[in-house]
Amino acid sequence: MSEIRQRTSGEGDGADKQTPHLSPSTGEPDSEDSDNDDLHDFATAKGNKSPLVQAAPTGTDVTPEILDSVTKNMSQRWRSYTIRFVLSICMITSFFVLLYLGPIALVLLVMGIQLKCFSEIINIGYVVYRSQNLPWFRTLSWYFLVTANYYINGEMIIDQFGVLLQKTDFLIYFLTYHKFISISLYVAGIVAFVCSLKKKYYLRQFTLFGYTHVTLLVVAVGANFLTRLIFEGIFWFFLCTSMIICNDIWAYLFGFFFGKTPLIKLSPKKTWEGYIGGGIATLIYSVIVTSIMVQYDYLVCPIEYSLEKDGLSLDECIRNPVFVLADYVLPKSVQTLLNIVGMPMTTIQMYPITFHSMFLAAFSSLIGPFGGFFASGFKRAFRIKDFGDVFPGHGGFMDRFDCQVIMGAFMYTYVATFIRIPNPQKLLTTIFAMQPEEQLTVLHALCDNLQGKGLIDCNSVYSLR
Amino acid sequence: MSEIRQRTSGEGDGADKQTPHLSPSTGEPDSEDSDNDDLHDFATAKGNKSPLVQAAPTGTDVTPEILDSVTKNMSQRWRSYTIRFVLSICMITSFFVLLYLGPIALVLLVMGIQLKCFSEIINIGYVVYRSQNLPWFRTLSWYFLVTANYYINGEMIIDQFGVLLQKTDFLIYFLTYHKFISISLYVAGIVAFVCSLKKKYYLRQFTLFGYTHVTLLVVAVGANFLTRLIFEGIFWFFLCTSMIICNDIWAYLFGFFFGKTPLIKLSPKKTWEGYIGGGIATLIYSVIVTSIMVQYDYLVCPIEYSLEKDGLSLDECIRNPVFVLADYVLPKSVQTLLNIVGMPMTTIQMYPITFHSMFLAAFSSLIGPFGGFFASGFKRAFRIKDFGDVFPGHGGFMDRFDCQVIMGAFMYTYVATFIRIPNPQKLLTTIFAMQPEEQLTVLHALCDNLQGKGLIDCNSVYSLR
Repeated sequence: MSEIRQRTSGEGDGADKQTPHLSPSTGEPDSEDSDNDDLHDFATAKGNKSPLVQAAPTGTDVTPEILDSVTKNMSQRWRSYTIRFVLSICMITSFFVLLYLGPIALVLLVMGIQLKCFSEIINIGYVVYRSQNLPWFRTLSWYFLVTANYYINGEMIIDQFGVLLQKTDFLIYFLTYHKFISISLYVAGIVAFVCSLKKKYYLRQFTLFGYTHVTLLVVAVGANFLTRLIFEGIFWFFLCTSMIICNDIWAYLFGFFFGKTPLIKLSPKKTWEGYIGGGIATLIYSVIVTSIMVQYDYLVCPIEYSLEKDGLSLDECIRNPVFVLADYVLPKSVQTLLNIVGMPMTTIQMYPITFHSMFLAAFSSLIGPFGGFFASGFKRAFRIKDFGDVFPGHGGFMDRFDCQVIMGAFMYTYVATFIRIPNPQKLLTTIFAMQPEEQLTVLHALCDNLQGKGLIDCNSVYSLR
Repeated sequence: MSEIRQRTSGEGDGADKQTPHLSPSTGEPDSEDSDNDDLHDFATAKGNKSPLVQAAPTGTDVTPEILDSVTKNMSQRWRSYTIRFVLSICMITSFFVLLYLGPIALVLLVMGIQLKCFSEIINIGYVVYRSQNLPWFRTLSWYFLVTANYYINGEMIIDQFGVLLQKTDFLIYFLTYHKFISISLYVAGIVAFVCSLKKKYYLRQFTLFGYTHVTLLVVAVGANFLTRLIFEGIFWFFLCTSMIICNDIWAYLFGFFFGKTPLIKLSPKKTWEGYIGGGIATLIYSVIVTSIMVQYDYLVCPIEYSLEKDGLSLDECIRNPVFVLADYVLPKSVQTLLNIVGMPMTTIQMYPITFHSMFLAAFSSLIGPFGGFFASGFKRAFRIKDFGDVFPGHGGFMDRFDCQVIMGAFMYTYVATFIRIPNPQKLLTTIFAMQPEEQLTVLHALCDNLQGKGLIDCNSVYSLR
């Protein structure tokens, strides 16, 4: 299924034909048959003789045998639906197992997904630009991925565990020279790229250079936001990923049963009914899942290195105020109403996080799908059906994680801006790295500031100067 | 001159023909005539009938009239040389005027150059991918440039002038919500891009999306590194830019007079003689210019907001140790030698910065030119002669600043890693933004640390708890 679309091929593939009522404007090669985008000339190069189409990303839509035998008597539409359902259950179950295994397992999961997504996207570029003869292209792409990960994750580790790194003789060098090593690695990559430039392939090589960098932007930066969310607390990571999954599933279900009005030309199978239904379901889901997760310290506490315990502090933490019950005064009208029905109340106890979750749910259902539309557009541009064929009926990894990138970036920034409380631990790392005289400067400035607030008497400190 | 190279055109343009001995492998359409890179098919699309070639970036190699009349009796080679020389002198003079005007003028200069470079590169993409009919492409490109600049420069301003921002009622919001505003702007850009996707143009639009992002990476990030260098001290900015200019000029001169051995196929006019001669000249230049600049506080002091003075502290500063004379013990062999010639010396006084300058000079002459090769490769890939025609004989802005990007990034990282001393001012910004209780936590942790070093007695501070 996930093969480069052949322009001259009139055959639609199964999946697209099964749901014609959902996609009035589609019908597989989706009237792009009349497409005159000259850019495609280089992709399909001189008709169909090119090796491009044959060498397209593998994709056979393999269905596990057991599923195949169970579903063989169903109609095509219900069969595809059942397969998708079973696979979804499997994926969700494995996700919960990883959640139980803890933050390190989740970070490894994100890393693994990143590698798979990168490889899927790079392979498409490799095939579409027919770069089989290009020297070093694959090696360089992966080199840039390693460099980008070294830099981005290094920055994150320093942010998160700087104090720990400073305690070891070896890692202190990593801490001090991290940025310098990163830029040196990157410059070496540029030099290697320039040296690998081969006459007759310049444009192709520069195009792939750009392609690799945009892929890095999406994949490496996207994965980093998700990893940072894990460190902010498993709650955030779970909320982010599960809201997108929930929205996907409910939008699919609403679309499947009620879908009539097409939403956007890019994804002919998406309908307004699915978009709205998925949004409402996600909003409800966010309130329920938040009220469950908020009970567990294991989920809501950020993962930080604790100076006192000399270890990771996951289970003992002071909760962020958003995870603590607060009193909210009810609007006058609601108070009157409750009085009438015989339940006099003026305030209500709620977790402030509930409101944040609802806002994020709204974002994930209104804007999140644009990540999917972006991916759809990309797939159409490059004439592929799916990014890969890992999950029967689901496509490749990138097909499942297209919306996670945009959601992860937005949610992490949201948490960093509106939720996170400045963390003294990280600051102390920086302060302890300074010269003692400068530490004294900081101490005295801090004393002055706190004295100004009437919290401390600084004279006793000054007397020690 | 800066027009898309016509594959079928046999005519070389003037400049290339003047120096045939420097470029044995060239001769304008540089044997790429036999090029079979299919990717070019979409650029030159169906021969020469396409509007592409006509609509190529403007470029007429205009020479100012006065220069024209003075040089009209010279031979082509010397004429081109004289024009280039006079223009170089003008450019260098204006640069010194800006240097005199101070850091703000320099920042504005960098900003202006950034805009011009971005517009040059984007125009090439616009023409090469024949995107005249693409809805919103230019608007979106500039929108992403504004967003990238808002984010990158905002981060820099917060780093540099956070304390100042916190003092004003209005700018504190900018400080607090900066990252969130940035990601929201960016997500809005992605949504707009998805909405602008137009059937038949998908591949072209995605290609240009990638093209814009890579341009942003080069231009906006490059400009930001240079701006940050200005804040680290005008010394660094001047050293960075002038070393590249010096290397350019001397490599050109050495190549012009002694050049025989071609260096790299990408830039047929570059020779080993120029590369090595330019390198040696830059090394000597770096020592001389450093020993001059190091005399002026105006140049070596970082530009920071001073809490005490409530203003920018440019003229009153404690010099970084690298700008202070230090004694270096001479090697035994040199001591013996000096004894023999009757100049007994065991130590020598030098500024430590001299060694740093020499290392950076070596980088700028060995690796810096790869920025130029990269740009050459890009120009060949897109079949253009120059990025623009602003400077007769010099091409466009991007032609002059191709090496500055790589050098700026490397030098800033070098300064941040090996030169800069942690600055208490920036830390205090962050500390003062915290809750008073957390400020107390920091105070006590800091006290403990300093007590451990025997610098302070913390009991007096603890008694206030």
